[in-house]
Amino acid sequence: MEPAIKYRLIKKEKHTGARLGELITPHGTFPTPMFMPVGTQASVKSLAPEELDAMGAGVILSNTYHLWLRPGEQIVKEAGGLHKFMNWHKGILTDSGGFQVFSLAKNRDITEEGVHFKNHLNGSKMFLSPEKAIQIENDLGPDIMMSLDECPPFFESYDYVRHSVARTSRWAERGLKVHQHPDYQGLFGIVQGAGFKDLREQSAKDLVSMDFPGYSIGGLSVGESKAEMNHVLDFTTPLLPENKPRYLMGVGSADALIDGAIRGVDMFDCVLPTRIARNGTCMTSHGRLVVKNAAYAHDFSPIDDNCDCYTCRNFSRAYVRHLIKADETFGLRLTSYHNLYFLLNLMKQVRQAIQDDNLLEFRQNFFEMYGFNQKNPKNF
Amino acid sequence: MEPAIKYRLIKKEKHTGARLGELITPHGTFPTPMFMPVGTQASVKSLAPEELDAMGAGVILSNTYHLWLRPGEQIVKEAGGLHKFMNWHKGILTDSGGFQVFSLAKNRDITEEGVHFKNHLNGSKMFLSPEKAIQIENDLGPDIMMSLDECPPFFESYDYVRHSVARTSRWAERGLKVHQHPDYQGLFGIVQGAGFKDLREQSAKDLVSMDFPGYSIGGLSVGESKAEMNHVLDFTTPLLPENKPRYLMGVGSADALIDGAIRGVDMFDCVLPTRIARNGTCMTSHGRLVVKNAAYAHDFSPIDDNCDCYTCRNFSRAYVRHLIKADETFGLRLTSYHNLYFLLNLMKQVRQAIQDDNLLEFRQNFFEMYGFNQKNPKNF
Repeated sequence: MEPAIKYRLIKKEKHTGARLGELITPHGTFPTPMFMPVGTQASVKSLAPEELDAMGAGVILSNTYHLWLRPGEQIVKEAGGLHKFMNWHKGILTDSGGFQVFSLAKNRDITEEGVHFKNHLNGSKMFLSPEKAIQIENDLGPDIMMSLDECPPFFESYDYVRHSVARTSRWAERGLKVHQHPDYQGLFGIVQGAGFKDLREQSAKDLVSMDFPGYSIGGLSVGESKAEMNHVLDFTTPLLPENKPRYLMGVGSADALIDGAIRGVDMFDCVLPTRIARNGTCMTSHGRLVVKNAAYAHDFSPIDDNCDCYTCRNFSRAYVRHLIKADETFGLRLTSYHNLYFLLNLMKQVRQAIQDDNLLEFRQNFFEMYGFNQKNPKNF
Repeated sequence: MEPAIKYRLIKKEKHTGARLGELITPHGTFPTPMFMPVGTQASVKSLAPEELDAMGAGVILSNTYHLWLRPGEQIVKEAGGLHKFMNWHKGILTDSGGFQVFSLAKNRDITEEGVHFKNHLNGSKMFLSPEKAIQIENDLGPDIMMSLDECPPFFESYDYVRHSVARTSRWAERGLKVHQHPDYQGLFGIVQGAGFKDLREQSAKDLVSMDFPGYSIGGLSVGESKAEMNHVLDFTTPLLPENKPRYLMGVGSADALIDGAIRGVDMFDCVLPTRIARNGTCMTSHGRLVVKNAAYAHDFSPIDDNCDCYTCRNFSRAYVRHLIKADETFGLRLTSYHNLYFLLNLMKQVRQAIQDDNLLEFRQNFFEMYGFNQKNPKNF
């Protein structure tokens, strides 16, 4: 059987671990490294599918936990799957729901069998097992699915993480067994292990032996510093097979995308660009700009003078500021559009830099313009 | 001097008072009768200018009171006017701010000079006079402006309305005197008089003698029945000159648009389509549909099977319901788009019916399909 998704390595950058490639899915091929916009509830905040397509998003992410709760995976299945339901006909990736159960749900009880919890919407008792996660994802019908994993905090004890990694491997195997559509849905295993090198090695070894069509790197961007994250990537990506895609979960700041690509990561996702857009924070080539600030009330220049997105071509900081201050949803639409465009465009530049073997130079120029040294890296 | 806006009468319908025409403004010409989408705060809820253009909106409305308060008319003026500020390059009409002062503001005190009040945003004391309204509208720069009027409740006493009408006439004259740009902004007078025929006559006579380029009919859709509104229109539109446009303020239900057109109204506006869109109520050819209802959870048909709008061509009731239930702003965008398209398309059909001299037949068919007889006219 042909795998549902295939990674094609086009070229390695000369001076880093970065790689140019493409991911071939049942719903089209997209170039990597790629940032994937997040549409938690089968909608990327305020944006239309055509707009995501126009800005170059070849793949988006949606959340299993949220869709399981509402509208329920059966309705999505009846609709003909997530692609038809939301009228998006390029790639879709879903997470396993595990991260949301750990971060949003209440009265959580993790057992070998799975996770008992009360959902955050109405408090009713639910149970998520590796098999249930796969069943939901099979019903939702994304091109790429995630195994259920446990994502412990970065600074948990070695013993806790060791046991957790072993269970995540057992859960991955259980999920693999019940997966119904390996011919058109690619299931990824998720490498865990926090900051412990030997545990990351064990996790990668376990999962690679199961021969997943792709591997995720989980348990990062959960409290550790950027330096720590990069350090973990330094020793984790080399553990993964070169002919499979690598997906760094939940990471979406501009610096982390560049630094992840340098370490051989192919795919990223994060709610950051749309979440900060909601209060008027914009990513620009000069760093973040809080357009709601009074300083921009009379500023008729675009959000980013180096940006050619719909928002920047048509509207001023003063207008966007007015909309956000006045709680007009069109403001959120304009800032969300801009931020997603910014990251997708950044990845385009990163791919070009890999092509040109000058990714480190690109990084330095970008960081300087972005004002990295002058700012708190947390706000980068 | 050429007036800023001109009405061209194309044809009168044979069996009613309806007329086909066009309004020529400094920002393009639009056909009448026309429904004007409302963009209270310089944004039509969640929609982009290109979308409004594509659905055939040749003119939109914005609110003087809201823009005066936020961002302030000076910022809009600095931006180069409302058209540039919001990137909308077709017609714009602004109200005078009077209606909002009467409906939203607090501690209102009406004097001959103007209205003292506290604004609804931060409670600070403000003063709106006929001259101030014109100054703000001159700064905002719409194609069509409104004189400051008083809009009393429909069932006020005869004496109150008589004095109010006389003051509205004096205010109209004061506004006319200070209007700075009659060459590119057309100022309308507003006919008041509640349900009293002789007061409507007096009001129309006063205003027509001032030779405005257009006339609004105010004080309707403020508590009276549809029958009463139609009755007032029956005797009011004939009081207005045939070579000037007539604008019925704040009316936007499908039945009232048809009945208004039948009585010779050329322009309508209302927040209704976008306001009800927010809680998932859709206007359809079969009447209103509350897409949030559980009945539509598994319904994969479009909102209106007779509609070819973006929403109906691409998304199902089940998906739109999910978005509205999940508080996704894209849901509001889809319902707003649909409702505005529905009314703009309705007016297109009304214009065709005038052309074909079968407006009464069109009305009857539409009302039957809409289920008027089976429903509460309030929910029509």
